[in-house]
Amino acid sequence: MIQYFDNCATTQVDPEVLQILNKYHTETFFNPSARSTFSLKIANDISVAREKLLKLLGGNGELVFTSGGTESDNLGILGCIRKKSGNIVVTASEHSAVFNTVTSLANKGYEIRQTKVNSDGSIDIDDFVAHVDNDTLLACFMHVNNETGAINDIKRINTLVKNINPNTVTFCDGVQAVGKIPVNLNYLGVDLYTFSSHKFHCTKGAGALYIKKGVRVNPQVLGGGQEKGIRSGTEYVGAIVAMAKAVEIANSLLSDNGYIFNNYKNIIRNALADIPNFKENCVENCSPSIMSLAFADIKGEVLLHMLEQYDIVVGTGSACSSKNKQSRIAKAIGLTPNYSEGVIRISFSKFNTLDQVKNLAEKLAFCVKSLRKTMLGK
Amino acid sequence: MIQYFDNCATTQVDPEVLQILNKYHTETFFNPSARSTFSLKIANDISVAREKLLKLLGGNGELVFTSGGTESDNLGILGCIRKKSGNIVVTASEHSAVFNTVTSLANKGYEIRQTKVNSDGSIDIDDFVAHVDNDTLLACFMHVNNETGAINDIKRINTLVKNINPNTVTFCDGVQAVGKIPVNLNYLGVDLYTFSSHKFHCTKGAGALYIKKGVRVNPQVLGGGQEKGIRSGTEYVGAIVAMAKAVEIANSLLSDNGYIFNNYKNIIRNALADIPNFKENCVENCSPSIMSLAFADIKGEVLLHMLEQYDIVVGTGSACSSKNKQSRIAKAIGLTPNYSEGVIRISFSKFNTLDQVKNLAEKLAFCVKSLRKTMLGK
Repeated sequence: MIQYFDNCATTQVDPEVLQILNKYHTETFFNPSARSTFSLKIANDISVAREKLLKLLGGNGELVFTSGGTESDNLGILGCIRKKSGNIVVTASEHSAVFNTVTSLANKGYEIRQTKVNSDGSIDIDDFVAHVDNDTLLACFMHVNNETGAINDIKRINTLVKNINPNTVTFCDGVQAVGKIPVNLNYLGVDLYTFSSHKFHCTKGAGALYIKKGVRVNPQVLGGGQEKGIRSGTEYVGAIVAMAKAVEIANSLLSDNGYIFNNYKNIIRNALADIPNFKENCVENCSPSIMSLAFADIKGEVLLHMLEQYDIVVGTGSACSSKNKQSRIAKAIGLTPNYSEGVIRISFSKFNTLDQVKNLAEKLAFCVKSLRKTMLGK
Repeated sequence: MIQYFDNCATTQVDPEVLQILNKYHTETFFNPSARSTFSLKIANDISVAREKLLKLLGGNGELVFTSGGTESDNLGILGCIRKKSGNIVVTASEHSAVFNTVTSLANKGYEIRQTKVNSDGSIDIDDFVAHVDNDTLLACFMHVNNETGAINDIKRINTLVKNINPNTVTFCDGVQAVGKIPVNLNYLGVDLYTFSSHKFHCTKGAGALYIKKGVRVNPQVLGGGQEKGIRSGTEYVGAIVAMAKAVEIANSLLSDNGYIFNNYKNIIRNALADIPNFKENCVENCSPSIMSLAFADIKGEVLLHMLEQYDIVVGTGSACSSKNKQSRIAKAIGLTPNYSEGVIRISFSKFNTLDQVKNLAEKLAFCVKSLRKTMLGK
C-alpha cells in the first residue's frame, strides 16, 4: 500500500465527500440553470454551500466558484485591474498561477515589482511594503508558502498595504491554507482570496475566489451568466456542495492535526538527528502539514525515487513547477546550489498513520545515508 | 422516480464512467505534474485518454482539456484572435457561451457580424457565407443547435468560409453533438471544436477544445503550464479519463439510439396528433435526441411545471439562458410571440425507457389540452 506524503500536491478524496459527489452525479444531477423545481433545488444547494463556506472561512462578501486554484488566481488578478497603467507588487515566492499571471501583465504596460522572501520562504514584509505606493493597483501575496510551509502574517501585510494605498487591491493565495490552518477572511482583511478543493480531500476541478464586499471583479469567462455573471459555465454542483463539507471536516480536525503533524515532524527530525548538512527550510510559523528539507549534495529527485521503492511518495517543490529544472522558490529563499537541488517536501494528511511516519523517517534517514555513501564511493 | 427528459441541459453520470471517476478520487489520485512514478503514470493516463478521444472523434491536432464547454468556447474564441482589427461572423442562434464571448469583442474594436438562421434553427448558410470577407478573423457556428436540435452542414460551411478566406479561423461549438451524433473532426475540417463532458453521461466540470494541426491558440489561464501551456491548472485527471470512456460508450450506441429516439419522437407526435396550433421546431436534419415543440397560447414554463407533477422533467430553451425572459433563439427562428413563449424541449438519453416516453407523450397531450381548456374558461 502506498504511503502518501505529497498532500500539498493533491489529496485523496474523503469518503464522506465522495458520497456527496456521487449523489450529484447519479441522483440530483440536474442543471442548476434549468427551469424545473428539481433544478431550483440544486441551485439552492449551491447557495447553501456558498453561505456555509463563507461562514466556515469567516468571510463577508462573495464566493465565486471556479474550476480550481489556478483559475481563481487568474480571475482575481486579471479581473480586478481596471486602470490602464500602474504597478503590481508580487513576492518572488508566489505559486506560478499567481506569479505567471502577474508577470504576463508586464506585456500590457504594467510595472511588475518583485519583492524578497526570507530564508524560510516567508515574505520579507518590510521589503514588500516598501514597494507599495500611490500607483500600486494590486498587491499579491500568499497565506502559506507551498514549498516551505511558511505562514505569512496576512493581516499585518494587508493593513500595511492599505495604510499606504487604500485603493490597492490585496490578493492572497490561500490554496495551501484552507483546510490546513485556521482561516478567517474578515480577520485577514484581504480583498481577494483563493482556494482549491483538491488540496483538502475534495475533487480536482473545483475551487473558489473570495471577493470582499465592495470589491469588483470583472468576469474572465463569458456565457450563461452563472455565478452572478462573474464566472459563466454550468456549475459543478456536486463539487461545490462537497467542498463545503470538506472544509467543514478539515476545520473540525485542524487543532488535532496541528498537534499530530507536529509530532510527525519531530519523529522525522529525530530520525535525521545524526545526519549532517541538511536544513529544515521552515521551522517557526510553519504549516503543520508541510516539512521542507534540503539535503546538501543530494538530488531531491533521486531521493524521491529511492523512497518510491518502499512505496513512499514525497514531493520535491511545487508539483506545478516541478517540471522546471530549478525551483524558483529554492532560489528565492537563498539556498546555495549544493542544497537547492536536494529539496524534498513532505506533506501530511489525516490519512497518514503514525506507523507510516515512523517508516518514512527510518527510510528517509537510510536513503540519505546510502546516497551520500554512494557519492563518496564515486 | 423522476423521468428525466432534459438531457441537453445535463445528463446523469454513467455507472461505468462513475467507476473511473471514483478510482481517480480514491486510488490513483496523484497530481500528474508531480515527480513520482505514480504521477508519471497518471500523466500518461491523460495522454492515452487524449489520443483515444482524438481517435474517437477523428481529429488530427491537439485536444486541450478545460473545465467545460463554456471555458472551451472562451479559450478557442479569445485565444485565436491576434490581429488588432477585423470582423467576426457569428450566427444568431449560438449558445450564450459563444455568442456573449464573441459580442464582447465589439468593445475591443472588432466588428461583429450576426447572421440569420432558418425557421428550424439551422444556419442560413448563404447568409453566413455572404458575411465572410478578407477581414474575417473568425467564423463561429454550431454543430447541433441546443434549442431546436438542428444539425448544421459543418463541412459545407467550413469549406465555403475557407474558400473565401483561408486565413479565417473556423470555430464550431460541438457541445450538443459529441456523443449524440457522429462526429469526425477531420471530415468537418474546422479549426476549433468544443465539447462538454456532462452532456454525455460524464461529470460536470470538464470539457475540451480541439485545435486542428497548425492552428494557434493563446492561453487564457496562466500558471503551471499544464496542457502544453495552453491551459494551466491541475488536470482533473479522473474526468479526462472518464470522458474518453463516456465518448466511447456514447459512440457505440449512436446508431441504435438514433433509431430508438426517432421512434420516441413518433410516439410523442402520435399522442399530439389531435392537438391544433403547435409546431415541431425542427424535423428534418434534427438530432435524434432533441425534440423542440412550440405550443401556441401556452406558456412553456407552466407546461413544464405541470409535467413535474408527474415527476416528468423537460426543458424550456437552453438551460444556460433559461433565466432570460425570452429565448434569443426562439426569436432568431422567427417564432411569433404566441408560439415563442410556448416552447418546451424534450431531450432523450439512453436511460429513458419506452414506458417513460409513452407516459410523457400521454401526459404532455393531457397537459396541453388542460391548459388550453383552462385558458378558454377564463
